[in-house]
Amino acid sequence: MACSLQDLAFLEASKAAEIDEKLMGPLGFSIDQLMELAGLSVATATSEYCAQNLQRILVVCGPGNNGGDGLVAARHLYHFGYKPVVCYPKQTAKPLYQGLVTQLASLDVPVLQELPSAEAIERDFDVVVDAIFGFSFKGEIRAPFADIISTLKKISKPIVSVDVPSGWDVNEGNKGGVGLEPAVLISLTAPKLCAKHFKGHHFLGGRFVPPAIRDEFGLKLPTYPGLSRKRPL
Amino acid sequence: MACSLQDLAFLEASKAAEIDEKLMGPLGFSIDQLMELAGLSVATATSEYCAQNLQRILVVCGPGNNGGDGLVAARHLYHFGYKPVVCYPKQTAKPLYQGLVTQLASLDVPVLQELPSAEAIERDFDVVVDAIFGFSFKGEIRAPFADIISTLKKISKPIVSVDVPSGWDVNEGNKGGVGLEPAVLISLTAPKLCAKHFKGHHFLGGRFVPPAIRDEFGLKLPTYPGLSRKRPL
Repeated sequence: MACSLQDLAFLEASKAAEIDEKLMGPLGFSIDQLMELAGLSVATATSEYCAQNLQRILVVCGPGNNGGDGLVAARHLYHFGYKPVVCYPKQTAKPLYQGLVTQLASLDVPVLQELPSAEAIERDFDVVVDAIFGFSFKGEIRAPFADIISTLKKISKPIVSVDVPSGWDVNEGNKGGVGLEPAVLISLTAPKLCAKHFKGHHFLGGRFVPPAIRDEFGLKLPTYPGLSRKRPL
Repeated sequence: MACSLQDLAFLEASKAAEIDEKLMGPLGFSIDQLMELAGLSVATATSEYCAQNLQRILVVCGPGNNGGDGLVAARHLYHFGYKPVVCYPKQTAKPLYQGLVTQLASLDVPVLQELPSAEAIERDFDVVVDAIFGFSFKGEIRAPFADIISTLKKISKPIVSVDVPSGWDVNEGNKGGVGLEPAVLISLTAPKLCAKHFKGHHFLGGRFVPPAIRDEFGLKLPTYPGLSRKRPL
């Protein structure tokens, strides 16, 4: 099912933002819908990578939409039978995000305010989902995420990054090596430009792009198999 | 994967309404989220029934949430490679529903205001999804849905009902034989009381029920296989 990277179109950060605006504007999607579908595809791709042997999943969520995708993914991972723990240090007061936290609380999924130490992560988790920063990240990494990324860079457990490896320049990749080096990248809607530099397991999620968006932005999207919410690239 | 019907708990209409209120109140779900997940499970169960040979799907949508599930399902069926056509005669002005219609329009999925004739349905479609009335239906069938159900009762093509076969009393079943007799029923969250009288292919969808709801309402929910959004009952 894999397809050659040459066959794909990669999106600049600014184009990814434009697509989001169109989806939530003239195309009639709500952010609740898109985040649910994105988070579900993150959970299904993570589950394909983790299979039965990586059960204890730490989902580290940033302050924006990428973090919201992580909150949704953690809920679905629970329903898939995994043992997710969420770290969500900068919580937003928006009702959507508060609802996502409430949903996790109703499942007794722990939501931590601080990242465990590198030693504790090594001991207590099999895999880390990086839902810290997405395609709208730019500039300096602000507190507390600079320390969080620095800690995550020390661990040997595999990292699954949502859409963009946190700390990477969305267009240029891991500039100065300050970002994470994930084992798995789950591109949402379409791969971002930085994904050209990614060498690990690459999934595509977000099976909802209308032909008008595909054509306007020149996306070359491979087909998804069967009913799947994700596909390998 | 099938389980005995004796192993299930069936929900009265009033209890199903209480669960919805809890999900969208203290449990923090938005209707956008729940409808997206419900409609996706309808699409996946319909796809399992239709396989490759039933491609032309007429999705008949009522004025409420059951109709909204149908609008979502039609979109996912498009992305799964089917050829859905929607009939949505009583459209609501709520932004969520208008958005769902806009999403279908962006995929060039036709949205009809009137049901085709029985002859046209026989000729042009392989299967009909009945998303007319759900668990909150009671009393008389109002126009234009009395005529619609009457027309659908004439066709020989298989009907897939969402949550409750339209025209059935939610607790007591097909009283007076006025309701549809679907080949397939997709129960959402948990089967309603009337599903005890259903003899066809029965699926369960809605993989998001927290243990607190399961325990409070005495639901006996079978496990879902793998990552699936539905399971046979």
